Amino acid sequence: MSLVIIGTIAYDAIETPFGKTDKIVGGAAMFAGIAASYLYDRVKLVSVVGEDFGDDNLNTMRSKGINLDGVQVKKGEKSFFWSGKYHNDMNSRDTLITELNVLADFDPIVPDSYQDCEYLLLGNLTPQVQLTTLDRLQRKPKLVVLDTMNFWMDIALDDLLRVLKRVDVLTINDAEARQLSGEYSLVKAAEKILQLGPRYLIIKKGEHGALLFGEDRIFAAPALPLAEVYDPTGAGDAFAGGFVGYLARVGTVNFNNMKNAVIFGSVLASFCVEKFGAERLRELDSSLINERIERFTELSKFDI
Amino acid sequence: MSLVIIGTIAYDAIETPFGKTDKIVGGAAMFAGIAASYLYDRVKLVSVVGEDFGDDNLNTMRSKGINLDGVQVKKGEKSFFWSGKYHNDMNSRDTLITELNVLADFDPIVPDSYQDCEYLLLGNLTPQVQLTTLDRLQRKPKLVVLDTMNFWMDIALDDLLRVLKRVDVLTINDAEARQLSGEYSLVKAAEKILQLGPRYLIIKKGEHGALLFGEDRIFAAPALPLAEVYDPTGAGDAFAGGFVGYLARVGTVNFNNMKNAVIFGSVLASFCVEKFGAERLRELDSSLINERIERFTELSKFDI
Repeated sequence: MSLVIIGTIAYDAIETPFGKTDKIVGGAAMFAGIAASYLYDRVKLVSVVGEDFGDDNLNTMRSKGINLDGVQVKKGEKSFFWSGKYHNDMNSRDTLITELNVLADFDPIVPDSYQDCEYLLLGNLTPQVQLTTLDRLQRKPKLVVLDTMNFWMDIALDDLLRVLKRVDVLTINDAEARQLSGEYSLVKAAEKILQLGPRYLIIKKGEHGALLFGEDRIFAAPALPLAEVYDPTGAGDAFAGGFVGYLARVGTVNFNNMKNAVIFGSVLASFCVEKFGAERLRELDSSLINERIERFTELSKFDI
Repeated sequence: MSLVIIGTIAYDAIETPFGKTDKIVGGAAMFAGIAASYLYDRVKLVSVVGEDFGDDNLNTMRSKGINLDGVQVKKGEKSFFWSGKYHNDMNSRDTLITELNVLADFDPIVPDSYQDCEYLLLGNLTPQVQLTTLDRLQRKPKLVVLDTMNFWMDIALDDLLRVLKRVDVLTINDAEARQLSGEYSLVKAAEKILQLGPRYLIIKKGEHGALLFGEDRIFAAPALPLAEVYDPTGAGDAFAGGFVGYLARVGTVNFNNMKNAVIFGSVLASFCVEKFGAERLRELDSSLINERIERFTELSKFDI
């Protein structure tokens, strides 16, 4: 049994109101993988990097117990590179540079050792690659979680709708839920999206928390109010990784576990934004995570 | 012992994407008073209306057990009138008409029978009138709650800062908290605002719920996800009325009761937006309110 995560491993260069970075390690699979590794010990990544990608960066992931057998290292090629600048509100950003490089013809390899996959996270990536990954798993996983973004709704909606039919959980943000459904009300948006395939929908609302829809129920998770958000990059991926990592650990999918998984996802995301890139995410341990779970409980608990 | 609420009683004409109304009954004191009346039975209003204000409208409030001895009816004058149009997102609106009428020279009367005031809600109104009301109470109330808006920050900031020094709780929305503090982060905004006088700050975030700050703690209340928001007018007033009404009922101010009060405020606000004006708010009873409290509990409860 394992948790397989497919997504990018990349270089990012980020500018926020708090500063800017040179090329640092980024990518959906990296953020999600590290987040999940704190909650579950059989995390396996499917991704691709270029020869320029430092071995030390891969070793950081290995040191978290993450299996990288499915990560191709392409000789003579360069890693995916993204550069972006966040606006003052930290909710919107401009993409400055996108160099696809190895991602341009990424053909995902799913090693035999990954065929024990029970939990699958299709991290934010071309829907076509997500479909190929699904096809290359001989057995349907117990739970398939899909994370995507508006970019794929704009340029690959048909493929995305095809993936949606085959997943159990979709995580997107509020603007994306509105775009995908054509409904402003998130309740109506959720109704429509749940007819496209997934049994559960998580709408991420950044500083406003997240909503979980499914089984005709709704759960509202708060976000931790933070004095500073240094860098939102990867927060959605860390959320997805924490979410599916928790479910893999408890091994049973029901609404109560899904609620807790949303809280774990929110906790990992709340750490992620405290420093640039994955710097904060890398330095966690279970006691820091449990302390923050306590803060989330304290934050939202009431007893009438 | 009583709960005194000062604010406008007015006529509104409202346009939203769901339709438009002729002149209907509105005003902060009306919304807050009706909301509070479901939770506490000694609610007393201070306000002013013109001769044009229908007796039946006043009787509707009286039928909820609300004391109107402090509501002046000005012969030969007209009631305050506001007309506004909400945009599609329901979060922003344009004011089309503001006729101050009786409000222009409103000199609040605090009847002797109101001097038993223990809980005071200074509803959204000119800060100078809020100050006069405070001055006319012979005994400092146990708890003073202030609701205000960006308009007063724009045109009467000095007076508003004077009121702030004398209140225990301030309720404003997130944009107003940012404006008042000059801080984008709501955590930092709260730190600054709590140095201006109030011991507690509630930041209302509309469809994203509300945050309560105080005693070095934070509580995050969800909003009820609604398929349709017909008319947001009065939701903030209903929130404030439900909030202070609950505190008046339990009679003890501490963080746990404040949290529950925020939930009651959110419940009353969630009803308010379901129909135009106070139409939905008027038709409630304790069983409907308790059912919705259950929904809020269900919505945000988790157990890790």
